[in-house]
Amino acid sequence: MDIYLDNAATTFPKPEVVIEAVADCLRNGAINAGRGAYPLALKAERLIEDTRNAVASLLNYNNEGRVLFSASATLALNQVLLGINWHYGDIIYTTPFEHNSVSRVLQHLQDTINVKLITLPINCKTLEYDLDAIKQMFNKMPPKALVMTHVSNVCSLITPVGIIAEMAKSYEAIVVIDGAQAGPLLPLEKAQELVDFYIFSGHKTFYGTFGIAGFVTNGKVPLTPIIFGGTGSHSELLSMPEDLPFRHEVGSSNIVAIAGLHAACGWLEETGIANIREHERALFKQTVEELNEYPDVKMYVSGNLENHLGSLSFIIEGYTAQEVGIILSQEFGISSRTGLHCAPLAHKFLGTLPHGTVRVGFGYFNTGEDVESFVEAVRTIID
Amino acid sequence: MDIYLDNAATTFPKPEVVIEAVADCLRNGAINAGRGAYPLALKAERLIEDTRNAVASLLNYNNEGRVLFSASATLALNQVLLGINWHYGDIIYTTPFEHNSVSRVLQHLQDTINVKLITLPINCKTLEYDLDAIKQMFNKMPPKALVMTHVSNVCSLITPVGIIAEMAKSYEAIVVIDGAQAGPLLPLEKAQELVDFYIFSGHKTFYGTFGIAGFVTNGKVPLTPIIFGGTGSHSELLSMPEDLPFRHEVGSSNIVAIAGLHAACGWLEETGIANIREHERALFKQTVEELNEYPDVKMYVSGNLENHLGSLSFIIEGYTAQEVGIILSQEFGISSRTGLHCAPLAHKFLGTLPHGTVRVGFGYFNTGEDVESFVEAVRTIID
Repeated sequence: MDIYLDNAATTFPKPEVVIEAVADCLRNGAINAGRGAYPLALKAERLIEDTRNAVASLLNYNNEGRVLFSASATLALNQVLLGINWHYGDIIYTTPFEHNSVSRVLQHLQDTINVKLITLPINCKTLEYDLDAIKQMFNKMPPKALVMTHVSNVCSLITPVGIIAEMAKSYEAIVVIDGAQAGPLLPLEKAQELVDFYIFSGHKTFYGTFGIAGFVTNGKVPLTPIIFGGTGSHSELLSMPEDLPFRHEVGSSNIVAIAGLHAACGWLEETGIANIREHERALFKQTVEELNEYPDVKMYVSGNLENHLGSLSFIIEGYTAQEVGIILSQEFGISSRTGLHCAPLAHKFLGTLPHGTVRVGFGYFNTGEDVESFVEAVRTIID
Repeated sequence: MDIYLDNAATTFPKPEVVIEAVADCLRNGAINAGRGAYPLALKAERLIEDTRNAVASLLNYNNEGRVLFSASATLALNQVLLGINWHYGDIIYTTPFEHNSVSRVLQHLQDTINVKLITLPINCKTLEYDLDAIKQMFNKMPPKALVMTHVSNVCSLITPVGIIAEMAKSYEAIVVIDGAQAGPLLPLEKAQELVDFYIFSGHKTFYGTFGIAGFVTNGKVPLTPIIFGGTGSHSELLSMPEDLPFRHEVGSSNIVAIAGLHAACGWLEETGIANIREHERALFKQTVEELNEYPDVKMYVSGNLENHLGSLSFIIEGYTAQEVGIILSQEFGISSRTGLHCAPLAHKFLGTLPHGTVRVGFGYFNTGEDVESFVEAVRTIID
């Protein structure tokens, strides 16, 4: 049996309750919700609302936090970032660790309406954000918006989003957080107040399946729809309805994936958010500590390992990342992910272009033995 | 057990092989395809390519037809209709039967770049398109594009898309077909030549699950991306890559839904496209013929019943559509769909605003007994 260390791409395996919920829904309730008056449709609609509430609660939003579902975090990010009412030349601060699902959208905004993108300063050795410098930058060039990954998909570095958001809010900046690699494992304090849009992915740190994601909004910043279609409500209009969630949720709800996400939320609650987070982080720290013995292994980690979640990026002297990935897979049955991880700016910052790094991402179902096998494999490669 | 007659919203139940394929993939292979070099990722990538080929073949495209996956037909329609390089004032012909996933996009194009929308003429009694009139209209005002639903989601009327597309092609018009209610049950002749974009939905007439849909393109008309994000290839670029499918497929592939669609394609082949189509149509015809005895039932059908697939729209004198839907569900355990079916222009054309109609949609798993139970229920309501 292979050892799966690609949990930053998608968590795998899924909790048994998620698999069962998906299979059960597909067999017994995979109908089109909310647009029919029959029992299965009404039941589906209740499930959708329950899932919205569960997600909002896990992400620490209060009752006024509104969850809107999308098919993927990428789509949700597009809906938010292209839907904001930008003005020519608006200043947007961002981190050096954005995924292309953010960077490519921001690039498009730069190309089309000349938004000015400023990267938040961070020490390239300690990987710590320079909060004083950020304060000064905000003072000189006040942010219109702040778009930050919560956790880097390349190296699981945690952005201190709460502190930076608080600074930005004194300039009334719009705050958008890409939580695809974080939510709900790192619930924020004052989310409702500080974060206008928190994007989540169902199939990553939520431990659900593909096909469901979305964002929570505190309702303060209106969005213009970027996708048009049927909403099952106000069907007589040829424009998109004004009210949420219809304004941004178009087409049939993916009730099967929502059933999986609902079960995942229950599993997260039961297992304990902190337990999952600390398990992932413990495996990460164990790996870093063991690999620290090998000077040929270069790891991209903060001086403070608590600033990471569960994924490690590294290279081995004398090998490309791709070579290491192939050896890990073919000789040791270990699944990793190599290259740029759809985050070229992060690799530019880390100095790991053009080949990128090897990434091993730990999930709740990994064990200390998996770490041992992986470290042993690295040792063999080096020797 | 309730009788499910809402197959136009989504086919239900699903073939057993689809349920099994989804559950198996979720348990054993729900990883992120194509961006890792390990066996499960490579296997997922092969499955995706196999499914592309199966879909293209079922939709009658030859080897050059390229299938691009989206999360929903709505999203695919947006990608196509917003991605075409329109010019101010372009003339677009369309049918009176478009779903809001088309109408609302076209309305947006009208509002923003003043495209001129012209409705194809059709006899409101016989529901037959006036091909001579269309020919003359094309001659007077040549089409830049033709956007047609293949089968109406309201009443399953089949648009003679092949004939009209052929006429439009002599003006080099771009041809877009919304096949959400048709593909692959009505494979087109000369699809590759006549149809630039054929949109399909995985969870409707393809008998797969939610979360997978897309379009086939013959590659002749370039599209500008409307969604930006990670593509797992050319990650170093901050613009979307030029090559297909990456230019339009962003974010993680929904391998679980693709596994279901792949199984569905196999089931469709094995069961026989014509068998499925004729079974649905036979139930439709049986229903129409039996309800014809009741003058209080007004049905929205063509003079030629062969011009329909499997869904019937009707009202009962003295009742709103909603009342009938609720009685069918609560007193007879029959699931129908009432209202405007996200297609207000169709109801405007049929004269059924503001309440719409009751729609019963038959699928392959319905039986003649379901029809008898439904007709008996209508009889009881009338009496």
